[in-house]
Order: sequence, then structure tokens, then C-alpha cells
Amino acid sequence: MSHYLHINGQRLIDSLFALGEYGALDGGGVCRLAATAEDKAGRDFVVARMKALGLAVSIDAIGNVTGIYAGEEELPMVMMGSHIDTVGTGGLYDGNYGVMAGLEVIATLQDAGIRPRRPLAVTFFTNEEGVRFQPDMMGSVVFAGEYPLEQALAAKDRDGVTLDEALREIGYKGERQPGDLSVDSYVELHIEQGPILDKEGIDIGVVTGVQGISWQELTLTGVSNHAGTTPMSMRRDAGLAAAKIAVYARELALSLGGDQVSTVGHISVKPNLINVIPNHVVMTVDLRNTDNDILALAEKRLAEFVAKMAQEEGVEITRRSLVRFNPVIFADEIVNAVEGEARRQALSWRRLPSGAGHDAQFMASVCPAGMIFVPCVDGISHNVKEHSEAKDLIAGANVLLQVVLQRAQRTA
Amino acid sequence: MSHYLHINGQRLIDSLFALGEYGALDGGGVCRLAATAEDKAGRDFVVARMKALGLAVSIDAIGNVTGIYAGEEELPMVMMGSHIDTVGTGGLYDGNYGVMAGLEVIATLQDAGIRPRRPLAVTFFTNEEGVRFQPDMMGSVVFAGEYPLEQALAAKDRDGVTLDEALREIGYKGERQPGDLSVDSYVELHIEQGPILDKEGIDIGVVTGVQGISWQELTLTGVSNHAGTTPMSMRRDAGLAAAKIAVYARELALSLGGDQVSTVGHISVKPNLINVIPNHVVMTVDLRNTDNDILALAEKRLAEFVAKMAQEEGVEITRRSLVRFNPVIFADEIVNAVEGEARRQALSWRRLPSGAGHDAQFMASVCPAGMIFVPCVDGISHNVKEHSEAKDLIAGANVLLQVVLQRAQRTA
Repeated sequence: MSHYLHINGQRLIDSLFALGEYGALDGGGVCRLAATAEDKAGRDFVVARMKALGLAVSIDAIGNVTGIYAGEEELPMVMMGSHIDTVGTGGLYDGNYGVMAGLEVIATLQDAGIRPRRPLAVTFFTNEEGVRFQPDMMGSVVFAGEYPLEQALAAKDRDGVTLDEALREIGYKGERQPGDLSVDSYVELHIEQGPILDKEGIDIGVVTGVQGISWQELTLTGVSNHAGTTPMSMRRDAGLAAAKIAVYARELALSLGGDQVSTVGHISVKPNLINVIPNHVVMTVDLRNTDNDILALAEKRLAEFVAKMAQEEGVEITRRSLVRFNPVIFADEIVNAVEGEARRQALSWRRLPSGAGHDAQFMASVCPAGMIFVPCVDGISHNVKEHSEAKDLIAGANVLLQVVLQRAQRTA
Repeated sequence: MSHYLHINGQRLIDSLFALGEYGALDGGGVCRLAATAEDKAGRDFVVARMKALGLAVSIDAIGNVTGIYAGEEELPMVMMGSHIDTVGTGGLYDGNYGVMAGLEVIATLQDAGIRPRRPLAVTFFTNEEGVRFQPDMMGSVVFAGEYPLEQALAAKDRDGVTLDEALREIGYKGERQPGDLSVDSYVELHIEQGPILDKEGIDIGVVTGVQGISWQELTLTGVSNHAGTTPMSMRRDAGLAAAKIAVYARELALSLGGDQVSTVGHISVKPNLINVIPNHVVMTVDLRNTDNDILALAEKRLAEFVAKMAQEEGVEITRRSLVRFNPVIFADEIVNAVEGEARRQALSWRRLPSGAGHDAQFMASVCPAGMIFVPCVDGISHNVKEHSEAKDLIAGANVLLQVVLQRAQRTA
């Protein structure tokens, strides 16, 4: 009946730009850290739109906000959503797009006089970015029951303010228990935040799952000595050992192939002086793979190389796991629905895993879940230059509309 | 006549500890940055000792202070010396030892009723360390006429205070023109600041020269992207290129062999986040060799590798030379005299170049110059833990005494 229904593209883009006004940075981009005054302003804007659409607004104890469009029957809801918090120098699209597109889907159905069989919902989860409070994806991990609510609320920012205090301050400490909504399916529309769709000129990313993530911190302790007077053979150079590990991390990803990635993003050197051999380095290694066995193999090989470096370079090295998420595989029924809709709408598409973490990975333990990606220019995200073309944003929302409608109307 | 003359070891050690009281740090070590109130206190202490020994004190326009013990004849002076400024977390011996040992040599001769043929002098040069004002070794490079006085005086510290202002403030802006003293020879006694003598259990380092130094700063610009979503093949990772250069710098030193050393002491990464590919790195490479041709070859090979990395990793790399000193070869007559004295005094000795810069390298362009090294424990220097054993300090001063006396008495 509604395959030819289309969302209102201009209304979607306008709503994204309107939300982008809250926490807008001079010169572009947004800073809307979780549970700040800027976040409150953004939340208030989205809640006002939910209410204007006649949605029932539900807020839970971790600040997740869900707007519900009642269905014809009392059944579990088909949920769309994402987050509206941003990193310190964020763009207009990361997270925000999935939320505003969800509301646009509901508005489109209302305009067409369609009330679906199942309720539809749009949720924005608290603190997906994890910049102000750790861990990230906090609202969804708590919703899924995989992280204790009390522990999340006790997380402190740099100034010692707890998330609980911050949520109360902005008026978003709700009464509902996280996870007490009955959810039939979860579909998250998001910009890719990577370069693949943009480079390959593809409209729709059919997201098959989320890569497993292993974050390790290495602390290297050598001996600080004079760069001129210490023969090469007598050095215990923590900086050199760190450099060798960084080079190995790249080789490791290349040798494992597939979608294995490896990044050394953080390196801090002490004393960090031109003429002093470094005696202290803290570095991080970020390993990701969709295949948990290969990810575990990468971790094992890295550990072996680190041990070898410690011995060869006379440097003490300790390892600490910061984050370890297993890969998530999205439900076939959602993945296939996204692919089918992209094909029916004559959009180019490809299957790909998400390299970034998303709320959908936790919702996948609650109900059948999936994601739709659209391209972002040059893969740039977490950056004020983050940009996606309006036509791509509109195309993604039209796929979301049809997938959600299928899910909501189905009788099987 | 005086081969069996010995310095007063206790008096030397006491004087070093007494000087170390000025600018003393809690828990050990000294902070006496050039031309600060602490430096003034240290200078006043040394000048008071010069006056107590009846020396004529001469201060030049860059704040170099020379105490002169008149000789029997009006001839160019045999100068000892070093510096008394320290790094922020310095030890008691670096520089200070050569100055106080020089005064101890004169005191010993006076005690023995010896007035040498040529005048003897002890100089402490201004701002050898170069921490507060750049360049380092400033007093001696100006004394040697290899750096303009006005430019040196105009050097500003972080607060915008010029060296000229700072010297006037502490009362050490003298009237003499730097370099207008007539110098016959220069002998500098210093702790090695490296591990060779200590590791090999050797008493005296016969310093053959000073390694040439090449300091380069590399700035690498790549593209910052998400660590999870950016395939390995699409990365322009400035951090990885920096790591490869650091590993190459080590390989370069090993492949050139000899006394070639190479150090990457400074690495600053942006944005320096665990899950973001670095887009900006500033790193330094410190290359040193006693052979200028090999040093130039090392620079050339490094430049070639840097260019290759820029191409292979898609990273823009700019190079800037921060410092370039040619190697210095000390005068045979001084080197041989030091070696001969060590042998005559039944001390173990070895020839070695200095890997660190010293005032003697500029004095070598003024007159025959040389240096004597004594061991420091584990080669640790520029550190509050810097330590040399009293017996080693005393042995070095006894070699200085005899070398200086030979130079001062010689008739050839």
C-alpha cells in the first residue's frame, strides 16, 4: 500500500539544521556533550517535536527519551532511534540524523493518515559518545541490561559531577526503569562515519553487524638518558619500543586481512625532550574485527610482540584492557529488509559491518535489530566538517520509512 | 717538581656541596637556570671564593666570569672552567664540578707556594644549558665570536624577559668585551654524562672531541579519521609514518655504526585519542657523529626515508633544522697531555668523544682546548639523581692540576 510513500525531505533537513542550532560552534559544527545545558536545549527541542506529533513521551532513569506513536493494536513497538549528544567538535548528523529521521517517518505516516498495526517509537539514548561520562553508549547498554544502572549514574565527569546529578540538573532523570518498554524491532539510521560508501559512490549501507572492539593501553618504562652520550647498545628506549609496536600493529592488521583494523591513536612520551631518550610512554592500540576469533588472534599476536619488545629493548611493558566488546551480528530479518528496500527503491547498496560502536549493538540483545548507513563526505565524522548530502540523507530516511512500516504492519 | 702535588679532595667535595645549596631542590638536585635569582646566588658564592683566593675577577658583557691568578710572566692565560647554570632538575656536578675543581687547582698551587709561569684562570660561562634562553652554550659561543653578542643578549625567556635585562637584574652584565682575554689553552673537567666510563669501570675519559650534532624537527600532516570505520588501505596516518621514521632512525645508527647515535626524543600526536587516526605529529630526530661526512650521510639517508614515507603513507612531511654543529676535534697537545697524566697517575683511562655539547667546543676555536671526563653513576645526568663518586671527582681534579700546570709552566 505504501511503497510509494516518501518522507518530506525538506522538512527532515530543516529539522536537522534546527537541532544543530543547540550547542552550535562558531564556524560550524556542534558541541552538545551529554547532560549539559546544550544537551538539555537539544533534548527540549526534540521532545517538543515529539509532543507536536502527539507522541507519548517516556523518560527513563538514565535519561533515555522515547516518543511513542500508538499502533492499532497493543503490541511491542517498532523502535527507531539513535542519540543527540555529540563529541566536543561534532557535526550535525552523527546520531541526530537517526532521531530526526525517525520523527520524520512518523510525521510522514501521519500526513498520509496511516496508523500502523504496531506502535512506532523514536528513542534518543543518553551519552552515546562517552565524552563527558564513561563508558560510551551508556543509555543503550543500560537499557539492554548489560551495564548496571547505578554504576552508570555514578559515573563522574572531570569536575566530579555524577551523571545522576547532571541528569537531575537538566530535568531528564526520568522515573521509568530503563528497558521496561516492550520492543519488537530496532532500526537505526546513521551516517557511515567511514569512507567506504562515499568512495564507492554507494547510496545505502546494509549494516550486517558491528565490529568487535579491543582497546588496550600499553605503558612502557625504559631509562631516560642523554641522547648524545649513551651508545646505541646501552639504551633502554621506551619511545623506540613504542614505535616498533605501532609499526607492528599496522603489519598485524595487514597480515590478518579482511576487515581487521588496527590503530595507535594515542602516544604520550616522557620527558619528551629532543635530547633525552624517552623513559616513559603510554600508548593505545585499537583492534577491531567482525570475527571474534580473528580479533582474539590479533590480541594474542600483539601480546606476543609486546613481550618480545620488552625483552629485546630492555623496556618494562604493562598492558591494560580498556574496552572489549564482542562483535555483534544483526538479525537477518532486518538486514534482509534493508537490502530489499534499497533494491526496490533502485538505490545502490552494499553490505558492510559497522566499524564504530552504535546503540543498535546493545538493542540487538533486546530484539531483532539492524542499521542503515548513508554516505558521509570523505568519511569524516566527529569533526565540525562532518557532512552528508541532502539527497543521501533523504534516501536513507525513505529506506527507514519502508523497513519500519513493513515491521510494524507484518502479521507473521 | 710538582708531579706529586695533590689537590685537597675534601675541600673540593665540600665546595661542590656548598655550591649545590643555591637553588637546591627538596629531595635533592639543583635548579639554577641562567640569570635567575638562584644563578645570582651561585655566582656570588663562586665570585666570593675567587676573591678569597686573591684572583682578579673579570665579568664580560654576556655575564661570563673569569677569576685570574696572575703568573710570573705577562703571557696568555691557561684557562680552566665550565658553567654553573643547571637544567630545571639538575645535579650538583654538571658544569659546577669543572669550575670548583679549577678553583681547587689554584688553591692547591697557592698552598704549595707555586706561582706558575703563565696566568691561570677559571671561567664560568653564562647559560650553557640553554633552558631559559636559547641557544645553549651561549657564553662560550659568544666568547669565541661565533654568535653575535647583541643577538644573544636579545634572547627572550618564556616571559619575554631578555638575557640583557636578566643579567642587569642580577648584576652580572659586565663591561668587558667577550673574548678579549688572551687565552693560551683551555681545559675543561666534566662528568661524562654518559655510561661508558661507569660501565667499563674506567677512571678518566681522555676526550678527543665533541660529536657533531644535527637536530631536526619533522612535522607530519595526515588525515584524522575514525579508527573503526576507516579501512587500512584508506588511511593517511601521521602517527604510523612517525613510528616508521623512529624505527628507521634506530636502524640508521646501527647501519652506520661507529659512534653514530640517533634519538627520537620528542613525539607529540594530535588529536591523540584512542579511536582517532592521528592527523598531526611533531617529532624530533637527534643525530650525532664525530665524523662530519658520516653525519651528513645520516642526514641524507634520513631525508630520503622521510620522503619515501611521505609518499607511501600519503602524509605531508616538512623538515626543519633546529641545530647543526660540526664535530670538534680537540688539540693533540691537550689530548696527549691528559692521557699522559692519567697514565702517570696510574689511573685507568680511555679515549672517547663527547656526545654532549660543552663550552670547550667553542673554546677550541680560540686556543688549544681539551676536556677530561670522570665517570658518573649509570651515566645519569640532567637529573636530580646525577652522582659521581668522590674518589672519581678527586682523581679528575688531580689530572686537571697536572695538565694545567704543565701548560702553564711550559717554555716551548
